[in-house]
Amino acid sequence: MPLVSAFAVADLLGLVAFGELLAFERMAGDARLAPDLRRRAALNEMAAAEIANYRRLADRLTALGVPPEDAMAPYVEPLQAYHDSTEPRDWAEVVTKAYVGDAITDDFVREIADALEEPDRALVLDVLHDSRYAEFAAAEIRVAVADDPRLAGRLSMWARRLVGEALSQAGRVAAEQATLTALIARDGRVDVPGLFGRLTAAHTARMAAAGLNN
Amino acid sequence: MPLVSAFAVADLLGLVAFGELLAFERMAGDARLAPDLRRRAALNEMAAAEIANYRRLADRLTALGVPPEDAMAPYVEPLQAYHDSTEPRDWAEVVTKAYVGDAITDDFVREIADALEEPDRALVLDVLHDSRYAEFAAAEIRVAVADDPRLAGRLSMWARRLVGEALSQAGRVAAEQATLTALIARDGRVDVPGLFGRLTAAHTARMAAAGLNN
Repeated sequence: MPLVSAFAVADLLGLVAFGELLAFERMAGDARLAPDLRRRAALNEMAAAEIANYRRLADRLTALGVPPEDAMAPYVEPLQAYHDSTEPRDWAEVVTKAYVGDAITDDFVREIADALEEPDRALVLDVLHDSRYAEFAAAEIRVAVADDPRLAGRLSMWARRLVGEALSQAGRVAAEQATLTALIARDGRVDVPGLFGRLTAAHTARMAAAGLNN
Repeated sequence: MPLVSAFAVADLLGLVAFGELLAFERMAGDARLAPDLRRRAALNEMAAAEIANYRRLADRLTALGVPPEDAMAPYVEPLQAYHDSTEPRDWAEVVTKAYVGDAITDDFVREIADALEEPDRALVLDVLHDSRYAEFAAAEIRVAVADDPRLAGRLSMWARRLVGEALSQAGRVAAEQATLTALIARDGRVDVPGLFGRLTAAHTARMAAAGLNN
């Protein structure tokens, strides 16, 4: 395993940290779309789990001598662009976004984390999303589709848009953050089609698990 | 101390629980107004502390045999009305709202908690806001006013509006929730002017501490 520069580590921790911060804000903002208080509270508790992870990443950045806000700054624009272009309009879209977006982000982070050394590798893998939340979101999607079968088509289209926007912003991040790109590189080159292929294959399997077509 | 009915306890726990849930959502939503990522993360971490408190209250309600969503339902409208009528427009208004709103809510809850028996009394007193956050908010207000002294007048007016809206919704809650009103009653009657007098006196002292006029 190649020695990874401290810059690259801070770049990745910054990306994951800002991802957590923004996912937290957006999920908390989407909670008002919940059909009842039980589900509203559940989404808020999912959101709160992200902020605890944010704190662990920010503490590690500080320990590495990098102010967390400096490490996060390059990602503000692409990550906000992703969320701005994928504002859910109702609860079914909220839970689909949580389900699809969290999982594909986790897969992406898992790919890069492989290149890290300990303790950062373990930290990054540890802040991936709790599978309880994916199960909650998938169950909500299945309930919504069972209630209104016509919803399946709309949610499948919505999920495709989420993946498209996510990959588009991921490509932008990879192009602009050279140190981060180096982390994804194998044998000196970044296999973008291979990476995107693995991400979309996993996505397709998850869609089926939630009862949606790809 | 009079024996408090289980209904009244659930009513108060429901009020505090929904207050935490909504404060969480609103603070997370306001974080985007922060002038930098450090402050944005700080507000989000303040927000996340509320959800941990929400969980403790919801667990206690469940233990008492009351679904948390049932206990919270009566407060959805008045608490949303408070927040809808007090949408901050910038960071100075965000921190002033956190400072003024949290403190007056805490004072109100402290008044009612006196009538509870253990373990509910200790639980409710324990979920009051961490003073670290009040200090953060007060410091932000002082910095903002030092940067732009004209801001003091606008923030003082904003704080008066926050208190006015909070007391108006508190009055509405007290009028509609008879079991809750019973908790505030001393010797069989609710001393509304006395209660509001104590709340506003504490508020005036806090305003001075943040460098604002009442």
